[in-house]
Amino acid sequence: MVLGVSGSGKSTVGTILAEALKIPFDDGDDFHPIENKEKMASGQPLNDQDRQPWLESMARHLAVQAKNRGGVLACSALKEIYRQTLGQYCHLPIQWVYLSGSRELLEQRLSNRQGHFFKPELLQTQLETMEPPRYAYNVDIAKPPKTIVSEIIENMNMKKSDLGLIGLGVMGKSLTLNLAHHDINVSAYNRSVLGEEHVAKDFASTNKHLTNLQVFDDLSSFVKTLISPRKIMLMVNAGPAVDHVIQDLLPFLEEGDIMIDGGNSHYHDTTRRIDLLNQHSIHFVGCGVSGGEEGALKGPSIMPGGDKEAVDAVLPYLKQIAARDQQGKACCTNIGLQGSGHFVKMVHNGIEYAEMQLIAEAYTVLREGAGLSIDEIAVIFKEWNQGELKSYLLEITADILMVKEGDVHLVELIYDAAQQKGTGGWSTTSALEVGAPFGTISEAVMARCLSALKATRVEASEHYGDYPKNPSENTETMIAELKVAYHAARVVNHAIGFEMIRTTSTEYRWDINLSELARIWTNGCIIRSSLMEQLVQEYSDNPSKHTLLIDSFIHQLKGERITLANTVAYSLQMGIAMPVFSAAINYLHGFTSEQSSAHIIQAQRDYFGSHTYKRKDRSLEDVFHTDWQQIVE
Amino acid sequence: MVLGVSGSGKSTVGTILAEALKIPFDDGDDFHPIENKEKMASGQPLNDQDRQPWLESMARHLAVQAKNRGGVLACSALKEIYRQTLGQYCHLPIQWVYLSGSRELLEQRLSNRQGHFFKPELLQTQLETMEPPRYAYNVDIAKPPKTIVSEIIENMNMKKSDLGLIGLGVMGKSLTLNLAHHDINVSAYNRSVLGEEHVAKDFASTNKHLTNLQVFDDLSSFVKTLISPRKIMLMVNAGPAVDHVIQDLLPFLEEGDIMIDGGNSHYHDTTRRIDLLNQHSIHFVGCGVSGGEEGALKGPSIMPGGDKEAVDAVLPYLKQIAARDQQGKACCTNIGLQGSGHFVKMVHNGIEYAEMQLIAEAYTVLREGAGLSIDEIAVIFKEWNQGELKSYLLEITADILMVKEGDVHLVELIYDAAQQKGTGGWSTTSALEVGAPFGTISEAVMARCLSALKATRVEASEHYGDYPKNPSENTETMIAELKVAYHAARVVNHAIGFEMIRTTSTEYRWDINLSELARIWTNGCIIRSSLMEQLVQEYSDNPSKHTLLIDSFIHQLKGERITLANTVAYSLQMGIAMPVFSAAINYLHGFTSEQSSAHIIQAQRDYFGSHTYKRKDRSLEDVFHTDWQQIVE
Repeated sequence: MVLGVSGSGKSTVGTILAEALKIPFDDGDDFHPIENKEKMASGQPLNDQDRQPWLESMARHLAVQAKNRGGVLACSALKEIYRQTLGQYCHLPIQWVYLSGSRELLEQRLSNRQGHFFKPELLQTQLETMEPPRYAYNVDIAKPPKTIVSEIIENMNMKKSDLGLIGLGVMGKSLTLNLAHHDINVSAYNRSVLGEEHVAKDFASTNKHLTNLQVFDDLSSFVKTLISPRKIMLMVNAGPAVDHVIQDLLPFLEEGDIMIDGGNSHYHDTTRRIDLLNQHSIHFVGCGVSGGEEGALKGPSIMPGGDKEAVDAVLPYLKQIAARDQQGKACCTNIGLQGSGHFVKMVHNGIEYAEMQLIAEAYTVLREGAGLSIDEIAVIFKEWNQGELKSYLLEITADILMVKEGDVHLVELIYDAAQQKGTGGWSTTSALEVGAPFGTISEAVMARCLSALKATRVEASEHYGDYPKNPSENTETMIAELKVAYHAARVVNHAIGFEMIRTTSTEYRWDINLSELARIWTNGCIIRSSLMEQLVQEYSDNPSKHTLLIDSFIHQLKGERITLANTVAYSLQMGIAMPVFSAAINYLHGFTSEQSSAHIIQAQRDYFGSHTYKRKDRSLEDVFHTDWQQIVE
Repeated sequence: MVLGVSGSGKSTVGTILAEALKIPFDDGDDFHPIENKEKMASGQPLNDQDRQPWLESMARHLAVQAKNRGGVLACSALKEIYRQTLGQYCHLPIQWVYLSGSRELLEQRLSNRQGHFFKPELLQTQLETMEPPRYAYNVDIAKPPKTIVSEIIENMNMKKSDLGLIGLGVMGKSLTLNLAHHDINVSAYNRSVLGEEHVAKDFASTNKHLTNLQVFDDLSSFVKTLISPRKIMLMVNAGPAVDHVIQDLLPFLEEGDIMIDGGNSHYHDTTRRIDLLNQHSIHFVGCGVSGGEEGALKGPSIMPGGDKEAVDAVLPYLKQIAARDQQGKACCTNIGLQGSGHFVKMVHNGIEYAEMQLIAEAYTVLREGAGLSIDEIAVIFKEWNQGELKSYLLEITADILMVKEGDVHLVELIYDAAQQKGTGGWSTTSALEVGAPFGTISEAVMARCLSALKATRVEASEHYGDYPKNPSENTETMIAELKVAYHAARVVNHAIGFEMIRTTSTEYRWDINLSELARIWTNGCIIRSSLMEQLVQEYSDNPSKHTLLIDSFIHQLKGERITLANTVAYSLQMGIAMPVFSAAINYLHGFTSEQSSAHIIQAQRDYFGSHTYKRKDRSLEDVFHTDWQQIVE
């Protein structure tokens, strides 16, 4: 179907196109019933009621053509409703070509026409009525008709993709393959700059067998292959790179297109980008993706957030490639508005930091406190991983402890300095914004910072000498108690993470469903575990209770807190750093204390800074100030 | 001295001014030696060598006039060097009036002059040569001469201030009075908006006796009273308010003027504002001020940072009002470039947060763990405050514990929920930026966040019930051990704060002198203490050693760490939250461990995210990756 206003050259282009494709050509004007022809001849304009039989007749003709070899039809088809009528009987999709050009050019062509009297008002009306179809192939009538026809044929032959992906790093490659394996037509792009010249080419040649995958190192060609509205996933480094890619992409995009940022961007940046792109009528979805390289390839947990319309448009694709929960549902859900998707991914990583550190601390207690061999610890972790402590991180740690190089455990050879990147630290900062406690997460980040000071630590260990250790005589009890303490610390850590999400969700009115969030974290992501399965149910049954006020956790922790305190006490007295275990028991002690020590703090602040305080025996609306110094003197 | 180019009306204005003031008038032209007059008559321009005897002769004349009743001299005085020559013998400051106007107006006046032949080149040369003096009173020659003279007289009668201060809140008022008490002429301004209508007026009427204080609620009048280059201290709330005041002030300021932000602004904002105002050739100094209301009034610790030229210009005033250290030196020093002044103030507050929390935790151990009365605890704190534990915060806490309402200790009536504001949390964020450990500070912030959840805590305490306490039988030993542990925790907390400053200073090349910084924190500020005095010496002797690798601290902490671990262990087992004490022992254990548990973390990261690791037995330049899963399977 070739469409456009009067003077756009529909008949000329349509005729040449039909010849080239060796299929019949028809002119829409020939389908008008006699009444319409008479009305037009008398100079009266047609109304939509007049057009109905005309459109019906073309629609039936198209259906017949589609069942034969196809055909070319030239028709103004100005309104979307006309085009819907035209396609109603066709069993194959119509390929639309829209001939567009400037008013000046159209006027010039119309006035040059032999035997026609050019009416400027008619062109004006048509231009005003035209609703350009986004799904049409758009060509510029300034080009010669033969060139236009070649372009149309080239475009018809072009393979179209459902989704585009930019950035073929570890995660980008894995996600692309995941999409392709799910029969989604996908176009992938990686820039060709110094150091990345071969990325796109190599990826293309490694994956030649995937017929639904196209790979580009030219942005313009890449964008052309995408079905409108275009859905383009960015898998580039968080930070300025995302802004650069957005700026590079913008000139190629049209209203209604959707960008999906699948990196670990800061959620404030995501909210900012959503607002920025809204000004261009482009959608932006901030999408957390967890699962590492393997998850991205085989099924990650996916956390999209942004405008509902945009998230709904990409959700079907994301759900296809996501991991499945125990009921077979996709580990992917619409998190909420603004940067909420990236926010929950950030807290996910904060919880992950602390979970990793808890295991590292438990390992150290077993190794240095109980004097166990690495093989023995691997067995213990495997055993713990059978029951309610089961988790992906514990499972892989047990795996790790079994890997040897000759007689040496590989883990013993690994340099003990860890990096901390954006998301872990951001969790701490974000918690501060809303005044949410964050102890386990910040201490996990802190432990990494401290580990990175390796050279200083080595020097310090020489000066300070060994800590006088006094190992337990009853190793069995110690291990059993550590297991209980580990469970309690994990519950506290999850409570801290989920409560941070609850508080922030309330603050920003994101209305995040904690049970649904826990559900999409039961598979695909790094912190999947039996505890997460339990949280799905608990948050479903108790949507508004603080995690640690849920009956089952009260029941468990009431006893476990004593063991947790004892284990931390024992380990600290052995000289073992237990920052996250300590943060957990301190949080629990603080949380379960009716009386905190903050009255001392409030008195101090009022003493030196006149900051005032509230009183237990008065309304909490009122504040008080005491001139402490004067009273004492 | 009335100065300006030809045609500006020096003689006219000078004559009327002299008449009004009833003092003699002289025209500079009359002081030329005969050689100059001849040279000018021949049409040759004078060079600077020619001008020397002329300027000398006027300078001697001015000195004589100054010793009598004064006088008015009209002179072009185009260059700064001429003006310096003119003032060289005068024992009183010369009051300069600069008559300025547009080239068009000057040309018009010169061409209208009777008996003069106007040379446009001469005016052009003069305008190019003119170096307008910033310190002069600048009047527009477009006004009638009599108006000009009235304005000059009004300005001469105006009291001039050395320093301006904007924002009469608690801190602003105290600083203003402190300046006034130190014989510094000060102008203070507070806006007159809803709720603040009376602030300026009330402050003015309360302090009528201070003849060197002027108070305004009109910004324009306020600025006019300031000697150029103007020095204006902003004492407004950190955040957008600072930007608003900057924008309000800018139209009234001139090149070289200096704003000093004395609030708790974020140091990144300060660096941004310095750069922004540099574009207007205005200086901006970010100035930390600690000491609370009393310190601001009687002598705070002051931490200015920014461009050296600007800090040097305000330092003499700030030093006058600062506290004095033990040697009588001012507790004020140039911290360094950019936002360094606000940065160290932020860390100061971070240290303060943790110091306050340590005392609150120690109190709780004594109260709940040892079951002591509040009076007994006050006595213990007073005793601790005699020796090396002496600190302002401990002193005021002992004071606080002695205040009673009838039979009840006031502290028992205070609502135990503390706020956390900007600086505490910012310290954590900032530490993350440079990867510095921050455990004691973040746990102190966290404790405040948790205390604020009062209602939830009360509910939790009911559900969880009392923690099974098992109080020590030997209270004496317990108190003695707590004292040792408190000392160790304080050293660790200070080490964390100062090392964060060291790392950040290196990162931004601020070159902060830790010994000098500790010195200005030995008095006036909230964290002044004997330990701070010790740090002045230690950092002076060991400028580049990590705090905890300084011999005296190694010597002390080697033994104390065992007591610290035991005290934390005991307290946690009593059900007492000890977040900052715990953070201190965990930091110390981590810091003195040659082997951390980060090798487990690194293996996990490589397993799920292919993040690679380094090896102890290989070059640290190289990274390695293991396909862990494949090996295990």
